[in-house]
Amino acid sequence: MPIDNSNMLKVIEEFPQQCKTGLELPKGMSVSGKIDKIVVAGMGGSAVGGDLLKLYMHDSKVPVFVVRDYKVPNFVDDKTLFFAVSYSGNTEETLAAFGDAERKKARIVAVTSGGQLGTKAKKVVRIPTGLQPRAALGYLFFPVLGVLQNSGIADVKNEEIKEMLDILSNLNEFKNIGERIAKKIGTRTPLIYASEAIGAVAYRWKTQFNENSKIAAFHHLFSEMNHNEIVGFQTMSGEKFLPIFIRDNFDNERIKKRMDITKEIISSKMEVEEVSTKGTYLLSRLFSGLYYADFASYYLALANKIDPTPVAVIENLKKRLR
Amino acid sequence: MPIDNSNMLKVIEEFPQQCKTGLELPKGMSVSGKIDKIVVAGMGGSAVGGDLLKLYMHDSKVPVFVVRDYKVPNFVDDKTLFFAVSYSGNTEETLAAFGDAERKKARIVAVTSGGQLGTKAKKVVRIPTGLQPRAALGYLFFPVLGVLQNSGIADVKNEEIKEMLDILSNLNEFKNIGERIAKKIGTRTPLIYASEAIGAVAYRWKTQFNENSKIAAFHHLFSEMNHNEIVGFQTMSGEKFLPIFIRDNFDNERIKKRMDITKEIISSKMEVEEVSTKGTYLLSRLFSGLYYADFASYYLALANKIDPTPVAVIENLKKRLR
Repeated sequence: MPIDNSNMLKVIEEFPQQCKTGLELPKGMSVSGKIDKIVVAGMGGSAVGGDLLKLYMHDSKVPVFVVRDYKVPNFVDDKTLFFAVSYSGNTEETLAAFGDAERKKARIVAVTSGGQLGTKAKKVVRIPTGLQPRAALGYLFFPVLGVLQNSGIADVKNEEIKEMLDILSNLNEFKNIGERIAKKIGTRTPLIYASEAIGAVAYRWKTQFNENSKIAAFHHLFSEMNHNEIVGFQTMSGEKFLPIFIRDNFDNERIKKRMDITKEIISSKMEVEEVSTKGTYLLSRLFSGLYYADFASYYLALANKIDPTPVAVIENLKKRLR
Repeated sequence: MPIDNSNMLKVIEEFPQQCKTGLELPKGMSVSGKIDKIVVAGMGGSAVGGDLLKLYMHDSKVPVFVVRDYKVPNFVDDKTLFFAVSYSGNTEETLAAFGDAERKKARIVAVTSGGQLGTKAKKVVRIPTGLQPRAALGYLFFPVLGVLQNSGIADVKNEEIKEMLDILSNLNEFKNIGERIAKKIGTRTPLIYASEAIGAVAYRWKTQFNENSKIAAFHHLFSEMNHNEIVGFQTMSGEKFLPIFIRDNFDNERIKKRMDITKEIISSKMEVEEVSTKGTYLLSRLFSGLYYADFASYYLALANKIDPTPVAVIENLKKRLR
């Protein structure tokens, strides 16, 4: 029998609803006054939320920085909008970065289910508790977007939210493709590739395979991989590795051509798997692109008789760090 | 007999001199007026130079962005100092980003040995031709630093240059450690880990193994890897992978502890290799940290009877992209 003791599948299936709720959670919360930089501090799933925001805000005049560290860059100041994102509210790196941002007089908004961050921060978007942080991406990303929207910094259109939710609600399609990819991977190490424009999607795939399936998985981006990683394929075996390309219809035409040629080159050595993002808005394409990975990593865990939910080594590590 | 038809070893051995020359190449070149953002556009070795600059400038009030893409962020403007870095001067992504930065009125400095970039850019630091781009890192990074120094944006001390050059000139030590690591890797896939503070060093190791040794190699950073990648080790085999930790004496104490505990956890499954950066200045630590990889990737190529210099697949790809 498959092992899913904590019903991870149910949580994954409820992801579209989680995104919708996440956007509503900040209610009217906003920041006023001049903001010339946005910093998102977090680790793991929280940091991926920051990476996604950076991609989403690519047209903005306000740069977005993602911090996965104990400290924040020295240019953080009172015109910096600083998001401290930690599901538990007790992530030590994020708490330290939060303290550093406070000292540097940043305007701070915390996104957390509670913990020390929930107590220390003055402005908090409180998100539901009881999930694995990686399974709470909707609650970690959309409140940040909501606050930016309320503050007039982001311009999120109703149509893009609607398109995204419509697409994500086609559960069966994501499930089927996820299951197909899990089978295809088998005992191989997946290598996930996407363009810079949707790069966080590839990283999310990698981390979902790491945490849900408990396997090695790596990622790299186009076209940077054409300048180094591609050379390694000369000695790589298709028994060990499965490259997976995440295609996006809106990718630069040269990137598309690079992906085509790279696929041809690699295909002479090993199988290459492909999936495509869905939708016309970037938000839909990012979230459809990454939603496949939830199912693929879930079904791969089950195929390997591994319970996708517990991450014992992380818990063990945290204990030993005290 | 070992294969090194183009005498890559000589080029690697001359790296300290290359760094010294690289810093002198801009001569008096500077930019004046208010600069509130720095962008480095490049691919491969040129982009790693940008990553290193970002780490080096961690204390600066002027944020540094690295662009590995055909376009530049929308916040690039006339207060942005934009470095277009391409060894050949014909890297298509960098040329496109350069055009985009021009349209956005950025202040532009090109670092190149010639090509279209050498013709199109008004301000050019011209670097010696005839090397593999990845073997020209000293020429790709130090001219950027020199221009920032001349412009009063970076404050490079004579002592730090001196310390770095003194350390790098201990060729035998880097060679011996590089050779030891090459032997240790054997047929395994190296996984390189370092802290965020010196993260570009880990990425440089990865790409040197890709390009010089023609093997798979991946990297990740501390502490982010503690939040996802570490879980994958549960099912990973020490016959397939060799983790290599790059230690830095100046790493955050919590990061050091995380590396210790992570090493203990992984060591129950497989060997873990370690090397340490040298010196007290960040510049020395970055460049000593990455210099090992030149030798390790070189000796690994030779052990596998592979000529380290040619990267046929990249040349092939470029031809097919025309």
